[in-house]
Amino acid sequence: MSRKVILYIAMSLDGYIARKNGDVDWLEGDGSEPNADFVDSGYDKFYGSIDTVIMGRKTYDQILTFGEYPYKGTKGYVYTSEKMDNNEEVEFTDENVEDLIGKLKDENGKDIWLIGGAGIIDDFMKKDLIDEYLIAVMSCILGEGIPLFKDNNPEIKLKLLKTETANGMAMLHYAKR
Amino acid sequence: MSRKVILYIAMSLDGYIARKNGDVDWLEGDGSEPNADFVDSGYDKFYGSIDTVIMGRKTYDQILTFGEYPYKGTKGYVYTSEKMDNNEEVEFTDENVEDLIGKLKDENGKDIWLIGGAGIIDDFMKKDLIDEYLIAVMSCILGEGIPLFKDNNPEIKLKLLKTETANGMAMLHYAKR
Repeated sequence: MSRKVILYIAMSLDGYIARKNGDVDWLEGDGSEPNADFVDSGYDKFYGSIDTVIMGRKTYDQILTFGEYPYKGTKGYVYTSEKMDNNEEVEFTDENVEDLIGKLKDENGKDIWLIGGAGIIDDFMKKDLIDEYLIAVMSCILGEGIPLFKDNNPEIKLKLLKTETANGMAMLHYAKR
Repeated sequence: MSRKVILYIAMSLDGYIARKNGDVDWLEGDGSEPNADFVDSGYDKFYGSIDTVIMGRKTYDQILTFGEYPYKGTKGYVYTSEKMDNNEEVEFTDENVEDLIGKLKDENGKDIWLIGGAGIIDDFMKKDLIDEYLIAVMSCILGEGIPLFKDNNPEIKLKLLKTETANGMAMLHYAKR
Protein backbone atom coordinates (compact mmCIF):
# COMPACT_ATOMS: atom_id res chain seq x y z
CA MET A 1 0.00 0.00 0.00
CA SER A 2 1.26 3.37 -0.91
CA ARG A 3 2.20 5.98 1.65
CA LYS A 4 -0.68 8.25 2.55
CA VAL A 5 -0.81 12.02 2.84
CA ILE A 6 -2.63 12.84 6.07
CA LEU A 7 -3.93 16.24 7.07
CA TYR A 8 -3.83 16.19 10.87
CA ILE A 9 -5.00 19.48 12.29
CA ALA A 10 -7.24 21.10 14.88
CA MET A 11 -10.08 23.41 13.98
CA SER A 12 -12.77 25.22 15.89
CA LEU A 13 -16.37 24.10 15.33
CA ASP A 14 -16.72 27.02 12.95
CA GLY A 15 -13.77 25.80 10.90
CA TYR A 16 -10.89 28.07 11.89
CA ILE A 17 -7.34 26.80 12.42
CA ALA A 18 -6.05 30.01 13.99
CA ARG A 19 -7.16 33.45 15.01
CA LYS A 20 -6.71 36.17 12.42
CA ASN A 21 -3.32 37.04 13.93
CA GLY A 22 -2.27 33.37 13.85
CA ASP A 23 -2.83 32.70 17.57
CA VAL A 24 -3.67 29.15 18.59
CA ASP A 25 -4.23 29.88 22.29
CA TRP A 26 -7.71 28.34 22.01
CA LEU A 27 -6.26 24.87 21.30
CA GLU A 28 -7.42 23.43 24.54
CA GLY A 29 -10.05 20.99 25.69
CA ASP A 30 -13.24 21.99 27.42
CA GLY A 31 -11.76 21.37 30.86
CA SER A 32 -13.35 17.95 31.33
CA GLU A 33 -9.86 16.38 31.57
CA PRO A 34 -7.74 19.23 32.88
CA ASN A 35 -4.35 17.64 32.25
CA ALA A 36 -4.98 16.60 28.70
CA ASP A 37 -4.62 18.75 25.64
CA PHE A 38 -4.44 18.41 21.90
CA VAL A 39 -1.01 16.79 21.89
CA ASP A 40 -2.13 14.03 24.28
CA SER A 41 -5.03 12.97 22.10
CA GLY A 42 -3.62 10.13 20.07
CA TYR A 43 -0.79 12.35 18.91
CA ASP A 44 1.98 9.92 19.84
CA LYS A 45 0.35 7.09 17.97
CA PHE A 46 -0.20 9.29 14.94
CA TYR A 47 3.34 10.65 15.04
CA GLY A 48 4.69 7.09 15.11
CA SER A 49 2.87 6.38 11.85
CA ILE A 50 4.58 9.12 9.83
CA ASP A 51 8.17 9.81 8.81
CA THR A 52 7.75 12.97 6.77
CA VAL A 53 6.22 16.37 7.51
CA ILE A 54 5.26 19.09 5.05
CA MET A 55 4.48 22.64 6.06
CA GLY A 56 4.43 26.20 4.84
CA ARG A 57 7.06 28.75 5.76
CA LYS A 58 4.88 30.74 8.19
CA THR A 59 3.94 27.57 10.04
CA TYR A 60 7.62 26.60 10.25
CA ASP A 61 8.57 30.00 11.61
CA GLN A 62 5.70 29.91 14.11
CA ILE A 63 6.64 26.42 15.32
CA LEU A 64 10.18 27.65 16.03
CA THR A 65 8.83 30.47 18.20
CA PHE A 66 7.32 27.79 20.48
CA GLY A 67 10.79 26.44 21.31
CA GLU A 68 12.98 23.70 19.88
CA TYR A 69 12.00 22.29 16.49
CA PRO A 70 9.69 19.41 17.46
CA TYR A 71 9.99 17.11 14.44
CA LYS A 72 13.67 16.15 14.63
CA GLY A 73 14.49 12.88 12.94
CA THR A 74 11.51 13.27 10.64
CA LYS A 75 12.10 14.33 7.05
CA GLY A 76 10.77 17.86 6.73
CA TYR A 77 9.75 19.91 3.71
CA VAL A 78 9.07 23.60 4.13
CA TYR A 79 7.41 25.46 1.26
CA THR A 80 8.81 28.91 0.58
CA SER A 81 9.44 31.03 -2.49
CA GLU A 82 12.58 32.39 -0.82
CA LYS A 83 15.96 30.78 -1.46
CA MET A 84 16.99 29.29 1.89
CA ASP A 85 19.78 26.95 2.98
CA ASN A 86 18.51 23.56 4.04
CA ASN A 87 19.34 22.50 7.58
CA GLU A 88 19.60 19.14 9.32
CA GLU A 89 15.88 18.93 9.82
CA VAL A 90 14.19 20.50 6.85
CA GLU A 91 14.55 21.05 3.14
CA PHE A 92 13.19 24.34 1.79
CA THR A 93 11.38 23.92 -1.49
CA ASP A 94 8.99 25.49 -3.93
CA GLU A 95 8.60 22.34 -6.00
CA ASN A 96 5.13 21.71 -7.39
CA VAL A 97 3.34 19.75 -4.65
CA GLU A 98 2.08 17.14 -7.12
CA ASP A 99 5.66 16.42 -8.13
CA LEU A 100 6.85 16.20 -4.54
CA ILE A 101 4.02 13.90 -3.50
CA GLY A 102 4.45 11.77 -6.60
CA LYS A 103 8.13 11.36 -5.78
CA LEU A 104 7.49 10.59 -2.11
CA LYS A 105 4.85 8.01 -3.00
CA ASP A 106 7.30 6.26 -5.30
CA GLU A 107 9.62 5.80 -2.31
CA ASN A 108 9.05 3.37 0.51
CA GLY A 109 8.24 4.94 3.83
CA LYS A 110 5.67 5.70 6.44
CA ASP A 111 2.85 8.18 5.97
CA ILE A 112 3.26 11.89 5.30
CA TRP A 113 1.87 14.54 7.64
CA LEU A 114 0.59 17.69 6.00
CA ILE A 115 0.89 20.09 8.94
CA GLY A 116 -0.32 23.37 7.45
CA GLY A 117 -0.90 26.25 7.30
CA ALA A 118 -3.90 27.41 5.38
CA GLY A 119 -2.08 28.20 2.12
CA ILE A 120 -0.40 24.86 1.58
CA ILE A 121 -3.46 22.93 2.78
CA ASP A 122 -5.50 24.80 0.19
CA ASP A 123 -2.97 23.88 -2.50
CA PHE A 124 -3.16 20.19 -1.51
CA MET A 125 -6.94 20.25 -1.24
CA LYS A 126 -7.53 21.88 -4.62
CA LYS A 127 -5.23 19.26 -6.19
CA ASP A 128 -6.99 16.51 -4.22
CA LEU A 129 -3.70 15.21 -2.80
CA ILE A 130 -4.94 14.47 0.73
CA ASP A 131 -5.67 10.79 1.37
CA GLU A 132 -6.85 11.05 4.97
CA TYR A 133 -8.22 13.80 7.18
CA LEU A 134 -7.68 13.64 10.93
CA ILE A 135 -9.54 16.64 12.28
CA ALA A 136 -9.62 17.54 15.96
CA VAL A 137 -12.74 19.65 16.41
CA MET A 138 -12.20 21.94 19.37
CA SER A 139 -15.21 22.75 21.54
CA CYS A 140 -15.47 26.39 20.68
CA ILE A 141 -16.82 28.81 18.12
CA LEU A 142 -14.04 31.27 17.42
CA GLY A 143 -16.21 33.67 15.47
CA GLU A 144 -13.46 34.70 13.11
CA GLY A 145 -10.03 33.55 12.08
CA ILE A 146 -8.10 31.72 9.38
CA PRO A 147 -10.38 29.10 7.81
CA LEU A 148 -9.22 25.53 7.22
CA PHE A 149 -11.35 25.23 4.11
CA LYS A 150 -11.19 28.04 1.60
CA ASP A 151 -13.74 28.54 -1.12
CA ASN A 152 -14.01 26.72 -4.42
CA ASN A 153 -12.59 23.39 -3.37
CA PRO A 154 -13.48 20.31 -5.35
CA GLU A 155 -16.27 18.20 -3.88
CA ILE A 156 -14.64 15.30 -2.03
CA LYS A 157 -16.62 12.33 -0.71
CA LEU A 158 -15.22 10.93 2.51
CA LYS A 159 -15.61 7.82 4.61
CA LEU A 160 -15.69 8.28 8.37
CA LEU A 161 -13.14 5.80 9.73
CA LYS A 162 -13.43 6.67 13.41
CA THR A 163 -14.56 9.25 15.93
CA GLU A 164 -12.94 9.64 19.32
CA THR A 165 -13.48 12.05 22.15
CA ALA A 166 -10.67 13.31 24.34
CA ASN A 167 -10.94 16.17 26.79
CA GLY A 168 -13.94 17.59 25.03
CA MET A 169 -12.35 17.44 21.61
CA ALA A 170 -13.94 15.38 18.87
CA MET A 171 -11.38 13.62 16.70
CA LEU A 172 -12.83 12.87 13.27
CA HIS A 173 -10.86 10.53 11.03
CA TYR A 174 -11.77 10.32 7.37
CA ALA A 175 -10.39 8.69 4.25
CA LYS A 176 -11.32 9.55 0.70
CA ARG A 177 -14.10 7.33 -0.58
CA MET B 1 -34.73 24.29 34.19
CA SER B 2 -35.60 26.66 31.46
CA ARG B 3 -36.40 25.55 27.95
CA LYS B 4 -33.38 25.41 25.70
CA VAL B 5 -32.86 26.70 22.19
CA ILE B 6 -31.19 23.94 20.19
CA LEU B 7 -29.62 24.34 16.79
CA TYR B 8 -29.98 20.90 15.20
CA ILE B 9 -28.55 20.86 11.72
CA ALA B 10 -26.34 18.98 9.31
CA MET B 11 -23.23 20.45 7.79
CA SER B 12 -20.48 19.21 5.52
CA LEU B 13 -17.00 18.86 7.02
CA ASP B 14 -16.18 22.21 5.43
CA GLY B 15 -19.11 23.85 7.21
CA TYR B 16 -21.78 24.21 4.54
CA ILE B 17 -25.47 23.57 5.20
CA ALA B 18 -26.53 23.65 1.56
CA ARG B 19 -25.12 24.06 -1.90
CA LYS B 20 -25.12 27.61 -3.26
CA ASN B 21 -28.48 26.96 -4.92
CA GLY B 22 -29.92 25.59 -1.66
CA ASP B 23 -29.67 21.90 -2.59
CA VAL B 24 -29.27 19.40 0.24
CA ASP B 25 -28.90 16.31 -1.96
CA TRP B 26 -25.57 15.54 -0.23
CA LEU B 27 -27.34 14.87 3.11
CA GLU B 28 -26.55 11.20 3.09
CA GLY B 29 -24.27 8.90 4.97
CA ASP B 30 -21.11 7.39 3.57
CA GLY B 31 -22.88 4.19 2.57
CA SER B 32 -21.68 2.16 5.56
CA GLU B 33 -25.32 1.63 6.63
CA PRO B 34 -27.17 1.86 3.34
CA ASN B 35 -30.67 2.11 4.80
CA ALA B 36 -29.94 4.84 7.31
CA ASP B 37 -29.84 8.54 6.67
CA PHE B 38 -29.84 11.80 8.57
CA VAL B 39 -33.42 11.46 9.82
CA ASP B 40 -32.73 8.05 11.36
CA SER B 41 -29.82 9.27 13.44
CA GLY B 42 -31.41 10.08 16.76
CA TYR B 43 -33.90 12.35 15.06
CA ASP B 44 -36.98 10.79 16.65
CA LYS B 45 -35.53 11.13 20.14
CA PHE B 46 -34.57 14.72 19.47
CA TYR B 47 -37.95 15.56 17.95
CA GLY B 48 -39.65 14.17 21.04
CA SER B 49 -37.72 16.62 23.20
CA ILE B 50 -38.98 19.76 21.45
CA ASP B 51 -42.40 21.35 21.02
CA THR B 52 -41.50 24.47 19.08
CA VAL B 53 -39.69 25.06 15.80
CA ILE B 54 -38.30 28.31 14.47
CA MET B 55 -37.23 28.82 10.89
CA GLY B 56 -36.74 31.41 8.20
CA ARG B 57 -39.13 31.89 5.33
CA LYS B 58 -36.91 30.34 2.66
CA THR B 59 -36.43 27.24 4.78
CA TYR B 60 -40.19 27.01 5.32
CA ASP B 61 -40.87 27.33 1.62
CA GLN B 62 -38.19 24.74 0.81
CA ILE B 63 -39.58 22.27 3.37
CA LEU B 64 -43.00 22.53 1.73
CA THR B 65 -41.50 21.60 -1.64
CA PHE B 66 -40.44 18.26 -0.10
CA GLY B 67 -44.08 17.31 0.56
CA GLU B 68 -46.44 17.67 3.47
CA TYR B 69 -45.39 20.04 6.26
CA PRO B 70 -43.47 17.70 8.59
CA TYR B 71 -43.81 19.51 11.93
CA LYS B 72 -47.57 19.31 12.46
CA GLY B 73 -48.63 19.55 16.09
CA THR B 74 -45.48 21.49 16.92
CA LYS B 75 -45.72 25.23 17.44
CA GLY B 76 -43.99 26.87 14.49
CA TYR B 77 -42.58 30.35 13.99
CA VAL B 78 -41.54 31.44 10.53
CA TYR B 79 -39.53 34.63 10.19
CA THR B 80 -40.49 36.83 7.29
CA SER B 81 -40.70 40.55 6.65
CA GLU B 82 -43.76 39.94 4.49
CA LYS B 83 -47.27 40.19 5.97
CA MET B 84 -48.63 36.65 5.84
CA ASP B 85 -51.72 34.97 7.26
CA ASN B 86 -50.89 32.47 9.95
CA ASN B 87 -52.05 28.92 9.35
CA GLU B 88 -52.78 25.97 11.61
CA GLU B 89 -49.14 25.04 11.87
CA VAL B 90 -47.11 28.22 11.83
CA GLU B 91 -47.18 31.83 12.88
CA PHE B 92 -45.40 34.28 10.60
CA THR B 93 -43.43 36.89 12.49
CA ASP B 94 -40.74 39.50 12.28
CA GLU B 95 -40.53 40.00 16.03
CA ASN B 96 -37.06 40.63 17.43
CA VAL B 97 -35.67 37.15 18.13
CA GLU B 98 -34.53 38.15 21.63
CA ASP B 99 -38.10 39.12 22.49
CA LEU B 100 -39.55 35.90 21.07
CA ILE B 101 -37.03 33.70 22.89
CA GLY B 102 -37.50 35.66 26.11
CA LYS B 103 -41.23 35.13 25.87
CA LEU B 104 -40.91 31.41 25.05
CA LYS B 105 -38.49 30.86 27.93
CA ASP B 106 -40.96 32.46 30.33
CA GLU B 107 -43.51 29.83 29.32
CA ASN B 108 -43.37 26.19 30.34
CA GLY B 109 -42.64 23.77 27.57
CA LYS B 110 -40.20 21.49 25.91
CA ASP B 111 -37.11 22.65 24.06
CA ILE B 112 -37.07 24.86 20.99
CA TRP B 113 -35.58 23.72 17.70
CA LEU B 114 -33.87 26.38 15.63
CA ILE B 115 -34.12 24.76 12.19
CA GLY B 116 -32.47 27.36 9.95
CA GLY B 117 -31.59 28.65 7.46
CA ALA B 118 -28.37 30.56 7.46
CA GLY B 119 -29.86 34.01 8.02
CA ILE B 120 -31.84 33.27 11.14
CA ILE B 121 -29.09 31.06 12.56
CA ASP B 122 -26.70 33.97 12.13
CA ASP B 123 -29.11 36.26 13.94
CA PHE B 124 -29.39 33.81 16.85
CA MET B 125 -25.65 33.21 16.94
CA LYS B 126 -24.67 36.85 16.96
CA LYS B 127 -27.12 37.43 19.84
CA ASP B 128 -25.77 34.31 21.60
CA LEU B 129 -29.28 32.82 21.91
CA ILE B 130 -28.36 29.20 21.17
CA ASP B 131 -28.08 27.00 24.26
CA GLU B 132 -27.11 23.73 22.58
CA TYR B 133 -25.62 22.76 19.24
CA LEU B 134 -26.42 19.37 17.73
CA ILE B 135 -24.36 19.22 14.58
CA ALA B 136 -24.43 16.27 12.21
CA VAL B 137 -21.14 16.42 10.32
CA MET B 138 -21.62 14.74 6.95
CA SER B 139 -18.69 12.83 5.49
CA CYS B 140 -17.99 15.11 2.60
CA ILE B 141 -16.23 18.28 1.61
CA LEU B 142 -18.68 20.24 -0.50
CA GLY B 143 -16.13 22.79 -1.66
CA GLU B 144 -18.60 25.64 -1.77
CA GLY B 145 -22.07 26.44 -0.52
CA ILE B 146 -24.01 28.31 2.14
CA PRO B 147 -21.91 28.37 5.33
CA LEU B 148 -23.40 27.52 8.73
CA PHE B 149 -21.11 29.99 10.46
CA LYS B 150 -20.82 33.44 9.01
CA ASP B 151 -18.04 35.85 9.88
CA ASN B 152 -17.74 38.02 12.95
CA ASN B 153 -19.57 35.82 15.41
CA PRO B 154 -18.86 36.23 19.11
CA GLU B 155 -16.41 33.72 20.56
CA ILE B 156 -18.46 31.01 22.27
CA LYS B 157 -16.91 28.36 24.50
CA LEU B 158 -18.65 25.02 24.30
CA LYS B 159 -18.73 21.79 26.22
CA LEU B 160 -18.86 18.58 24.20
CA LEU B 161 -21.76 16.58 25.67
CA LYS B 162 -21.62 13.61 23.34
CA THR B 163 -20.38 12.29 20.03
CA GLU B 164 -22.17 9.58 18.12
CA THR B 165 -21.57 7.95 14.78
CA ALA B 166 -24.36 6.78 12.51
CA ASN B 167 -23.96 5.75 8.91
CA GLY B 168 -20.72 7.64 8.59
CA MET B 169 -22.10 10.83 10.06
CA ALA B 170 -20.55 12.26 13.21
CA MET B 171 -23.14 13.76 15.55
CA LEU B 172 -21.55 16.39 17.78
CA HIS B 173 -23.61 17.62 20.71
CA TYR B 174 -22.48 20.75 22.54
CA ALA B 175 -23.81 23.02 25.25
CA LYS B 176 -22.55 26.49 26.05
CA ARG B 177 -19.94 26.40 28.79
